[in-house]
Amino acid sequence: MRLEEKVRGASHREVVDRLGAFFGAKSVVLIGATDRSPWSIWTHANLRQYSPNVTVHVVHPHHDQVHGQQVLKSLNALDEPVDLAYVMVPTSAVLEVMNEVADAGITNVVILTAGFGEAGPEGAELEAQLVDLAHARGLTVLGPNGNGFINAAGGLTPYGLLITPPLDVGPVGIVLQSGGLASAVLAGAQARGVGLSLLVSTGNEALTSASDIMRYLIEDDRTKVIAAFLESIRQPDEFREVAELALAAGKPIVALKTGRTEAGAKAALAHTGALAGDDRVIDAAFRQLGIIRVNSLEELLATAGYLGHHREIRGRRIAAITPSGGACDLLADLASEEKLEFPEFPPETLAELGELLPSFSNPQNPLDVTGYVVMDPTIALKSLGIVANDVVGNYDMVLYTATIPRLEAPNPAPIEQRMDALAEAGKSLDVPLVLQSLISVDLTSYSRKLLGDRGLYLLSGIEPGMRAIGHGARYHDRRDRWLEVGPPTTAPSLEAPVNARGVWPEHLVRGLLEAHGIPVAPARLATSALEAKAFAGEFEEPVAMKVASSALAHKSDIGGVALNVEVDQVTATFDELKKRLAVALPEATLDGVLVGPMRTGGIELLVGVVTDPTWGKVLSLGLGGVWVEVLGDVALRVLPVGPEEITTMLGELRGAALLSGARGTRPVDMDRLVAVVYQIAQLAEGLGEALDTLEVNPLRVEGDCIEILDALAVWRSEGDSK
Amino acid sequence: MRLEEKVRGASHREVVDRLGAFFGAKSVVLIGATDRSPWSIWTHANLRQYSPNVTVHVVHPHHDQVHGQQVLKSLNALDEPVDLAYVMVPTSAVLEVMNEVADAGITNVVILTAGFGEAGPEGAELEAQLVDLAHARGLTVLGPNGNGFINAAGGLTPYGLLITPPLDVGPVGIVLQSGGLASAVLAGAQARGVGLSLLVSTGNEALTSASDIMRYLIEDDRTKVIAAFLESIRQPDEFREVAELALAAGKPIVALKTGRTEAGAKAALAHTGALAGDDRVIDAAFRQLGIIRVNSLEELLATAGYLGHHREIRGRRIAAITPSGGACDLLADLASEEKLEFPEFPPETLAELGELLPSFSNPQNPLDVTGYVVMDPTIALKSLGIVANDVVGNYDMVLYTATIPRLEAPNPAPIEQRMDALAEAGKSLDVPLVLQSLISVDLTSYSRKLLGDRGLYLLSGIEPGMRAIGHGARYHDRRDRWLEVGPPTTAPSLEAPVNARGVWPEHLVRGLLEAHGIPVAPARLATSALEAKAFAGEFEEPVAMKVASSALAHKSDIGGVALNVEVDQVTATFDELKKRLAVALPEATLDGVLVGPMRTGGIELLVGVVTDPTWGKVLSLGLGGVWVEVLGDVALRVLPVGPEEITTMLGELRGAALLSGARGTRPVDMDRLVAVVYQIAQLAEGLGEALDTLEVNPLRVEGDCIEILDALAVWRSEGDSK
Repeated sequence: MRLEEKVRGASHREVVDRLGAFFGAKSVVLIGATDRSPWSIWTHANLRQYSPNVTVHVVHPHHDQVHGQQVLKSLNALDEPVDLAYVMVPTSAVLEVMNEVADAGITNVVILTAGFGEAGPEGAELEAQLVDLAHARGLTVLGPNGNGFINAAGGLTPYGLLITPPLDVGPVGIVLQSGGLASAVLAGAQARGVGLSLLVSTGNEALTSASDIMRYLIEDDRTKVIAAFLESIRQPDEFREVAELALAAGKPIVALKTGRTEAGAKAALAHTGALAGDDRVIDAAFRQLGIIRVNSLEELLATAGYLGHHREIRGRRIAAITPSGGACDLLADLASEEKLEFPEFPPETLAELGELLPSFSNPQNPLDVTGYVVMDPTIALKSLGIVANDVVGNYDMVLYTATIPRLEAPNPAPIEQRMDALAEAGKSLDVPLVLQSLISVDLTSYSRKLLGDRGLYLLSGIEPGMRAIGHGARYHDRRDRWLEVGPPTTAPSLEAPVNARGVWPEHLVRGLLEAHGIPVAPARLATSALEAKAFAGEFEEPVAMKVASSALAHKSDIGGVALNVEVDQVTATFDELKKRLAVALPEATLDGVLVGPMRTGGIELLVGVVTDPTWGKVLSLGLGGVWVEVLGDVALRVLPVGPEEITTMLGELRGAALLSGARGTRPVDMDRLVAVVYQIAQLAEGLGEALDTLEVNPLRVEGDCIEILDALAVWRSEGDSK
Repeated sequence: MRLEEKVRGASHREVVDRLGAFFGAKSVVLIGATDRSPWSIWTHANLRQYSPNVTVHVVHPHHDQVHGQQVLKSLNALDEPVDLAYVMVPTSAVLEVMNEVADAGITNVVILTAGFGEAGPEGAELEAQLVDLAHARGLTVLGPNGNGFINAAGGLTPYGLLITPPLDVGPVGIVLQSGGLASAVLAGAQARGVGLSLLVSTGNEALTSASDIMRYLIEDDRTKVIAAFLESIRQPDEFREVAELALAAGKPIVALKTGRTEAGAKAALAHTGALAGDDRVIDAAFRQLGIIRVNSLEELLATAGYLGHHREIRGRRIAAITPSGGACDLLADLASEEKLEFPEFPPETLAELGELLPSFSNPQNPLDVTGYVVMDPTIALKSLGIVANDVVGNYDMVLYTATIPRLEAPNPAPIEQRMDALAEAGKSLDVPLVLQSLISVDLTSYSRKLLGDRGLYLLSGIEPGMRAIGHGARYHDRRDRWLEVGPPTTAPSLEAPVNARGVWPEHLVRGLLEAHGIPVAPARLATSALEAKAFAGEFEEPVAMKVASSALAHKSDIGGVALNVEVDQVTATFDELKKRLAVALPEATLDGVLVGPMRTGGIELLVGVVTDPTWGKVLSLGLGGVWVEVLGDVALRVLPVGPEEITTMLGELRGAALLSGARGTRPVDMDRLVAVVYQIAQLAEGLGEALDTLEVNPLRVEGDCIEILDALAVWRSEGDSK
């Protein structure tokens, strides 16, 4: 992939600096500006309204006056250097214009024009030319087929759709691979009081990817959290690096990634020209990388807004103050689902609340100050004061249901005083104060002012709010562990066996596994009935016998496995297995028959490593039998993983209790089990590109006895096996 | 429960008529009206603003003028009959005032005052007196401790918290057991353009329950869908009857029921004084009754709003038109989760769309008309026109992403014309047209007008909208089946055995099961070693032997089960089992030893019937072993259920595939299995109050061989067993 290699060549710092200049432009030229295009009208209007310190030029070969401004016929007419070109010319003119842009000494280009990679093979060819040209001329390009960007914090808004005021500046950086949703997200953010640092619509990502934008946002001081709408991850290595930089910096990435389902993946394929990866692998990769995955635009904004304003909240213990028992019920239900806690109030707190609140109240956490708050609106704040005394060591945050008036009252003083008191309480509280509304409705200009003037942020709605708090708690858990353990180390590179071709059945894989010290149940490959009988004598009676042929991947498909064979039956069984192979696959060569001791009891696991087209080697781990076959109960991780992560994987299995001795099974030596799975993962990873699949099934586990009973490998190079 | 019996005495028609008069009052007297109480101020203001045709009187013993109105010192001063009293006097004065109300010939009373059942034993006693008084004087009472109601459609708004305009009239009837959330729900409904018929806050439900309100709403022509916030279901029989009436009437009930989790249940217990039932049973009961259960206030409104306006939509096949590929991806993901479908467009439709849309487009369902819609806003409507030609037989609805302007443009004509065209298209379309926004934001006064003037409703947001559509599809499936099958018939009443006391182990339950024709694996109760040996000879060798004592519920706990006993070991085994009982439970009487054939293989099921404190007999059905013990994989239903529902239960099990022959098992004779489970359920239900628990574990199933291997019963009357 030519593009990726070129981009990958750039260092993190280079990308950040380049985009810093890009988003920090002080002058913009709109190329192809015309009063007949809404895009042109709106981009110009946006710049006029929200970019007061930016010089705007308009260029069009055939107009004199556009958007009430004098038109330059060409870039040659510019009498000063310009930082950024915004290109709206027809598709066929884009390359020529880019050359003119470069000639004029402009290095930053937004291309709004569509008709490139998204439009079939011809468009893709044109996009490739565009990329070459940009590289040759040293241009930084956003798009094509993108709306541009809104640098809210920096006052630069070359964005193709009208920005309805107000444009709130704040801690959330947004990157979208869908231009069509960018304005919806903007409107949603405004409605909820989620302030933006930067919003970027990346379009076709010919040169600047969502990952690049995230790099910039990680280094951008005004951005505290990154919200992303992603349709495809084209460069997973790049993405992984960025995610780890974000983890290191403590800037949460909240991502809405589409293509969750087969149907979704099909839609994504059709219109972006990029394959959506297997969604379960993406889920796994995101979890490993500390990325918060959400399911809707609403959840994206609620989570990013919360984290932007409350990034510092760690822990799950909440003290809540509400005006309604119904709200308490909802909070309690959601807390349980999100594994958040409402620890009981200390006795002194309860006693003081009992004195403050009406006799018919029932103080507890979450607290219902009762409808009496209508008569005496101060009881909620007073309750906050009481709860505040005992928060240290008991709670990680105070959650306060705030009913913010939507319209200014004839006498606004009382509410404004209460808002002042609330802001003061937040400042003096020893843990963060989180304000929350009972239901998700938009801020009005008045409620926005009441909050904004006091630097307050309101979580919109009980359910969206509690989900966001849950995301935050899980994020910090993941990140803390990541900081503690560090990123997993890559496995040492291993040379593939010289005969690594096609499919390797058990008798070939055994040697590979044993050579790397991985425990395989004992067995010997007998090449004659006589030898088989001799080998059988080495083991306890009865034995297991399995036909071995490089041409046969699945022995049991042809009845090639004989169990519980008594010693006196070994010779006959050898001949029978030989016959079965000859009948089923006449052209196959018999390599021999594996003879080994019978193994029964214990728990069987499946340990597989497959190659995902996007993410590379993926480890899957599950309990055998119904668990995998009927329930699909498998934990996934993108390699590399460390032993800690394998322990977590085992804990994620729905049948995990079996490993610790449920139903009378012998508890498994977990350290040893993790070590063996880790060995398998290291081997598969170390073999690199040569290996496609390594599947151990089953790995038998009984107490501290852990051994492989069967395994299969698939190599990348074609063999003659099938 | 005295209250329930009294209420239960009233027929559906009586309740509906009584509440019809209640909510249809033409004159209201506010008792305890004072300018010092916000409740009084707001109730009065609400009546003034939204109840233009209602006469309002104010009564207070010590004021002359309140809310700018002449005060009556007492109800004696009324010079005309009044329909409804709204009581805001102190708790201690409520009973006296109720007598005065009755004396004045007023029969309808809202009691806002708190301090009753919710406030401990004293309050509960006061509430009991209130109930007696209301019955004695023939009063219809809403509350106490409730905000009153908003009859939006009928223009009567005696409601204690200020109603911010606009108050949209519409198809959604709302009942809430939480007064504190009523205004939040009202605000949320307004924000989303969800119009209300009636909103009722039921408070303590001393006399009028949420079920009563639902009865009224079912019969209210202006109500198309019922939204409920429920903390507890105090009268499940009543509730069930109402739910079935709603199913019959085709009025969906959407319910947010709190107490989902243990933590939630605790909060509900603390402040309502009513036990929250086991949540999984509630889930089951709701599903059986066709009630749509939601998880948030936002989902409650989105679902009720959608169903209120699109109740007629059946089926899952959607044709969608959007302005964004990102929106298509989200729609496709959500459709897959909600089991909705986007069937491909017919070839003619695709061809026409190809001609209409830009060359870089990629027509498919869901359709992205592309960002070119900015240049030519008509392409979306034209696409709708093309899709409309082929909807019949292919689609159940057309979903159209509508971007409704938030502010009036300088020239509003074009958008207004497009809105007209959209409304026209909706009317001429052969399937329902559903409008949807990209993200959930509030309607503005302008967008509300654009929609409202044309009778259009906008689903707010892609994710909330698709969840609502999914709820609707599932509702219709459930209802259609309910209409087809009819409500399950109650099992015939059975007399309990004369010795039905305490716990019955297997040897006692066997007879009960056999007497009702339920297949039990053969076994005989031997009372001596000699007899045991004789019985063993009747079966194939080896046999199974199980100790039998009325004092022993769980035989295996004391090693009381011997498997694979050869005939020559039967005598010794009899003595051994006898000894084990004597050692473990010296005072227990040995009733004998069960001797029967060995049974292995097949699939084991658990069939249990337990008594839920709220819902009565509940059937649970699961696969044995890890399925129940590790996964908790059990399907639940409140009895009675018919065989159809038992079939559905089996299908819900995560291991259902095993029954149809996954993993090499023999497919089960499902008709026979369902029949046996139905027999067990009928027996348990028929035994009624006498029976607490009947547990069959395991029910062995192998092909068409279905038989009970072990069972246990617990009777309500205490026995001497343990």
